[in-house]
Parts: sequence; structure tokens; C-alpha cells
Amino acid sequence: MAKISNISGFPEWLPEEKILEEQILRKIRSIYEQYGFVPIETPAVELLTTLAAKGVVDKELYAVKRLHAEDQEEAELGLHFDLTVPFARYVAQHASDLVYPFKRYQLQKVWRGERPQKGRYREFYQFDIDTVARENLPLSCDAEAFTAFEQALSSLDIAEYKIKVNNRKILAGFFKSLQLDDAQRHDAVKAIDKVDKIGKDGVLKELAAAGISESAASTIITLCDYRFPLAKFESEISKVDVDEPLFLEGVQELITISSLISDQAREHTEVQLSLARGLDYYTGIIAEACFLDYPEFGSVGGGGRYESLVSDFSSLSIPGVGFSIGITRLIGLILDKKLKPITKKSFSTVLVAVNSEEDRVQCNTVAAELRAGGVNTEVFFKSPRLGKQIEYADKKGIPYVLFMAEDGGFELKDIQSGEQKSVSSVSELIAALQ
Amino acid sequence: MAKISNISGFPEWLPEEKILEEQILRKIRSIYEQYGFVPIETPAVELLTTLAAKGVVDKELYAVKRLHAEDQEEAELGLHFDLTVPFARYVAQHASDLVYPFKRYQLQKVWRGERPQKGRYREFYQFDIDTVARENLPLSCDAEAFTAFEQALSSLDIAEYKIKVNNRKILAGFFKSLQLDDAQRHDAVKAIDKVDKIGKDGVLKELAAAGISESAASTIITLCDYRFPLAKFESEISKVDVDEPLFLEGVQELITISSLISDQAREHTEVQLSLARGLDYYTGIIAEACFLDYPEFGSVGGGGRYESLVSDFSSLSIPGVGFSIGITRLIGLILDKKLKPITKKSFSTVLVAVNSEEDRVQCNTVAAELRAGGVNTEVFFKSPRLGKQIEYADKKGIPYVLFMAEDGGFELKDIQSGEQKSVSSVSELIAALQ
Repeated sequence: MAKISNISGFPEWLPEEKILEEQILRKIRSIYEQYGFVPIETPAVELLTTLAAKGVVDKELYAVKRLHAEDQEEAELGLHFDLTVPFARYVAQHASDLVYPFKRYQLQKVWRGERPQKGRYREFYQFDIDTVARENLPLSCDAEAFTAFEQALSSLDIAEYKIKVNNRKILAGFFKSLQLDDAQRHDAVKAIDKVDKIGKDGVLKELAAAGISESAASTIITLCDYRFPLAKFESEISKVDVDEPLFLEGVQELITISSLISDQAREHTEVQLSLARGLDYYTGIIAEACFLDYPEFGSVGGGGRYESLVSDFSSLSIPGVGFSIGITRLIGLILDKKLKPITKKSFSTVLVAVNSEEDRVQCNTVAAELRAGGVNTEVFFKSPRLGKQIEYADKKGIPYVLFMAEDGGFELKDIQSGEQKSVSSVSELIAALQ
Repeated sequence: MAKISNISGFPEWLPEEKILEEQILRKIRSIYEQYGFVPIETPAVELLTTLAAKGVVDKELYAVKRLHAEDQEEAELGLHFDLTVPFARYVAQHASDLVYPFKRYQLQKVWRGERPQKGRYREFYQFDIDTVARENLPLSCDAEAFTAFEQALSSLDIAEYKIKVNNRKILAGFFKSLQLDDAQRHDAVKAIDKVDKIGKDGVLKELAAAGISESAASTIITLCDYRFPLAKFESEISKVDVDEPLFLEGVQELITISSLISDQAREHTEVQLSLARGLDYYTGIIAEACFLDYPEFGSVGGGGRYESLVSDFSSLSIPGVGFSIGITRLIGLILDKKLKPITKKSFSTVLVAVNSEEDRVQCNTVAAELRAGGVNTEVFFKSPRLGKQIEYADKKGIPYVLFMAEDGGFELKDIQSGEQKSVSSVSELIAALQ
């Protein structure tokens, strides 16, 4: 007999947990579709050369190989570690077959060979949206994707959240105004991004190590205190005395985006001028969402604008903006902190109880009619005493049990309240159960 | 720049093709949920020892390893090649946490390192349902799963289909009545299963090679001619003169199942006594579906009853019955033979045209109201002349374009018919577009 053991870092949910995940995924998907994002899917594997194109640390990569590959010529493959690289490759490969602006969502598992620990998985779902266009992508797209992203976060309905935003141009312009060179600007972005983890002293140390003067560093560190609601950004930022054009351009972009997003999104958003996000490819707005009550959980999602998505694969100019939600970590948090009731072990609305096997065909017929009327319906698989059948419905979280009455009508029992009522026809049942 | 190339055997759909796949998946999922099947998902990887438990040909397995695994102790992993083995492992592992009968669906990609060719993929979706119970699973479960499976096939609406069924007990009883020993019965099952590929002569050769006498072989070969509609099975099978109890038990099972399935399922089903299905674990009903007009396509799905799902992992007795649909091959067929129109590049119902950037906030507001009313709505990302915007909607297959009228009302254009009508309020719009 083969031994069973958990594979560390590869989570597996019980049915009631998977149902919760499904409900969340469907909500998010429906929101993204409301905005016109369409699904795409890429293979789980890419060429290793594709995965390495953006210079990922390859220690985290999972290589995939036929167990007994005879053919040494076979392509070297790896599991994708995010959805951005596969999407970039997809857009480059199919560029002439897409209609622009191309707005896609992508919900897939990704794999990273990181050391597994609480809230860190080796296999996890990401849910990404991105809008890309040829040559020129107006800020309306940043605003739209951001609004959809915020609405998705809001739909989770599990905890207070906040989206921190900044603009890479604001940072770059600020550093430019301090006469930092390219390498220093790069190091300064990395350093200030860590202020929540290493504190201001830590940031100052890194700035010094990057050869940045004390006076510039002390100016840079003031960025950490610039945190204000997006709604107040325009008036607050005007107090910051920087006239570097790049800085002003970034400020103006954020003001424009703020004017185009939903009120609800604006209310949940805070500008933090220290926010930098590690990845190199961002060029405009950047954002990161967190739960106020679970700071240790870190980011639930984030994203931003990048001027050239496909540059690693094509010479086309295809700017984009996108946001990603880390689904599996989110489910892990919900389960860990019990943020949602996990009671449903079924999507069924009603269980048809079976008095005896002679009644089964009739029960099946009623069930078929209910299903055709949009009511998810189970028929009990045996015909034991009714108490047993009610117990099953209760265990699965099926809210109603239906009994065939002797007069050809039905008795409908609400399991929660215990109430039972007579219903004379299937159409009446459908109306009651929808 | 990293070179892009297709990875042979790993299909990737364009957005409009993926939308088609999504529509099919949603239909099937909704049908399975109507019957009370709930989703589960297992990791893409299993321990190699788990995958090998059922004695799979390991040449087809994909092994997964961190590219620079330092730790030699790390578990040896492979991508799952079907959903049955992971499901068996899942049930064994979580047996005490499940409510029985446990009815699950599972839609996941599986990977097989077979030589890629037309209609054969290395990565593909399978959509499985199974019902399992402790100790004893009544035939009502076979009938229910079969009915749901047939309804899923029917929902595809692409071609005439037929489900061939048989019962392993009929075959085993038949062979027993001919005094075949265990090994010969096993070989006879394998041989007769191939009759559509190798013809009767081929089957006879294999039977001879298995040491089966000529007279027994000539009796076995008559099975190939027993093909009749399920509705006529009871009367037709009574003409077959076998009184081996196992044979009669198999016959009775099929008759019972036939009495419990939907009329529609019965009408699409044919008993073929030569149907055997290769896999060893089937013990009762077996089924295989095909499209009448595409015999070369082979099976679109199939399944059957197995007495012990988890025996490789646990000593529990957990019988089950289940059916599987090969989604990716199906999509491949639809695309290849153009069995469905591939016109929708979007789930959106309406595009809000933007006259000028000053109108964008107002357009966003209307769009938000439409979305809240259940209408998938896009807002055009720029504000060029309206012809350009209509062209975009047309290219994406968005059926309506909405213009803001000067009087504060709206003009709604039906792109197909070219008709345009005035609508005065958003609620009227929602009613018109839902």
C-alpha cells in the first residue's frame, strides 16, 4: 500500500474549504467580467529560457522533465512562477491576433520552490488582471483596472483593507532632484521600499551603503512620512517643494487617476510616497493592498503600470497596467483566522428524501424538474428512515428537505427553523426555493 | 531577447477560443452542481510513489524538481496524469472528514508525456465526477452519475453522440461460463475491447494467443454483435443463453440502472457487450461516449463503477462510480471542425462610447450603474471618433454600443441590426440589456 503524506507547501482544501474558495473566485471573476476583462490561460510550463528572461532567481524554479526522457533534445521546461511572464510571452506571441486594448484576467496556479512556512506556499493561485495596448495606454486604463481591483477586494468582505499607492515617476523624479545617479536611484528605491520591515534607521544604513550623501538621505527619509488619503493628495503634495518635471508628471498622473476611479476605491486608498514595490518593470502607478487588522499578513495583492510588457520577447511597444490577488494565501488567512463561516459542504438547495425505493423514479422526476427550474437538488441515495436523511442534509448544509406527501403534493422542511409547509406543485416549489 | 516557440503538446487558446472553453466548462459545472456534486482540487503534483501506486507506465510521467534542489532529502514529485489517482489518495487521506455519499467534481489539468499528435496533448483538462460511499454504494448512484454525465454531453450541443455501456460482471460471467481461468478472462477482456480497432480477426488472434480454445473464442466473438439500444436491453439479453450467476447479476444491474436514469440518457445509450474499457479497476457498469460523425475522434468521455477506490492507500472499503470528460481534446475537435461559432472576444454586453475625455467620469458612472444591474459593461479607453469605437465593439463581438445623448438620455445601438433607439434612464437600459 502506498504511504500517504502531505507535501509541504502544496495546500489541499477539504470540500467545504474549496467551496469557500470557489465562492470567492466566482465573485472576483464576475466583477472582472463586468469590466470587460476576458479569460486567458497559458500552459503550466514555459521554456526555462522564457522563465529566465526577466532574470528570476532560478533557485525557486521547478523544472519539469519526463521521468524517462529518452530524447535529450527535448525542450527544457519549468513551471511558471507568476502569471506576468507567461502573459508577456502570450502577448508577444499572439500580438497580431489580439484586439486592443486587450483586457485579460488570468486565474491559475503558480509554483515557487520557496521554503514553505505559514502563509507561504509552493503552489498557489494568483488572480491577475491586465490591460495592454499598442504604443499608448491612456490613464483611463490604470483607473479602470484599479477600480476593478478595489471592487474585487471589497467583495471579499472579510476585513478592513487599504490600498497604498504611489507612482514610480514621483520617486524617480524626487531622487533625480537630489542629483542621485542611476545606480543610486535604483538602490534608493529598493531601500525605501523596506521601511515597514527595517525601519527608518535600516533605510538610512542602506542609503549610506549605496554611497548616498547624508543630506540626500535625510531628505529621502522624509518620504516615509508622506502618507495621506488619496482624496487629499492634490492639496498635500503641493506642499512638497520639488520642481523636477518627472516628479510633477507622476503627481499629475496620480491626480488624474484619482479623478477617474470610483468613489469607493478612492476612499480605500492612501498615497504612501515610500511605497516602491521591488520589481524593476514598474514605470507609473504602483499599488499594494493590505488588511488593517492583519499587518503581519503583508500584501493581499498589488500591481502597477509598466511601459513595456513584452520587451523581453519582442520589439513591439506594448504598455500595460495590471493588478494581482494572491488567492491561496488569502484562503489560508480566512481559514486560519476563521474570517468566514465554513458551513456549506454542498451547493445544493434541497434534498429530496426517498421514502422507499419504489418512489425513487418519481423522486428523480421531481428533482429533474427542480433542476430545470434552477434549483440545485439532491436525491438521497438510499431510503432509510427520514431522520437519517435529514441528518445528511444538515451535515452538508443543505437548507431544505423535500418529502413526497401521500396526496401527490409535497412537504418542504426548513432545516434551520424546523418549519415545515405543504406545497402542492413543483412550480410552487421552484418559486419557494429560488 | 528570449526566443518564443510553441511547446509541442501544450495547447494555448486565443481569447475567443478560451471564452468558448469557459462557456462549456460553466455549463458542465452548473449541471454537476445541480446534482449536488461539489468541487475539490488536489495539487498538480503527487509523490511519485502515489502516482506509481496503480502501476502506471512511468514513461509518461513528468517529474518535478526544484531546478537547484540542494536538499537531496526532498520528496520526489510528479505531475498527476489523471484525476482518479489523486482523488483516491484524497479520499483515503481525508476519509474521516468527508460526508458520505461523497459526490465530487474535479476540473483540473493533467499531464502525460505521450508523443504529441493531433488530438493528443501533453497537458489537458479533465472534468471528472465521482460518487463514493463507505462499504456499500447503491445503484442509484451509478444511475445518478450517469444521468448527470449524459446531461453534460448533451449540453455541448455540437454533434450527435452515443454512450456505449456494458457491465464488467456481464463480461466476467460470460467468460466464466466458458470455463476460462483468471488470466484468460483478463486477456479476453483486453482483446475484445479492441474490436473497433483491430476487427474480429484481430480479436480472434489475441484470444488464441491467450490459449483460449477455438470454440470458446468463437463464442466470445459473438459478443461483438450484441449491440442494442438500452431501452431494448432487457428483452434482447433474455435471448442470450447464459445462466452463470455473475452474468445474470450484471444484467440485472444494467436493467436497474436503466430504470433509474433519465429518459434522455436512456435514449442516447446503447449496450455493447464487447465494450470492456482497458482499466483494471472497473467492476460494474462501464461506459464510453463518442460522437457519431467523428468516429476517428474516439472517446469524448467515459467511466464506470469500481468496488474499491482507495485500496492502494487504505484498508477502508470505499466503492465508487464516476465519469470523466476530456475537455481539451473536445475543444480541439470543436476548433478543428468549426463546430461552434468563435465570434465572442468578450463577455461584455455593451460598450459605453466616450465622446470626449470630459465625459469620462459620467460614462464611468453610467457603466457602474449598469454593472450593478448585472450588465457587463465596457467604457472605451480613449475618445476618438465614434466610428472607431463601434469598430472596436464589433471586433470584440460586443452587441451594443451606448452613446450619451445631449439631453441627458442615451442612444443604444444594436451593432448587428444597426438599429438605434433612445432610452431615457439607466433602469430602462438595464431592462433592455439584461
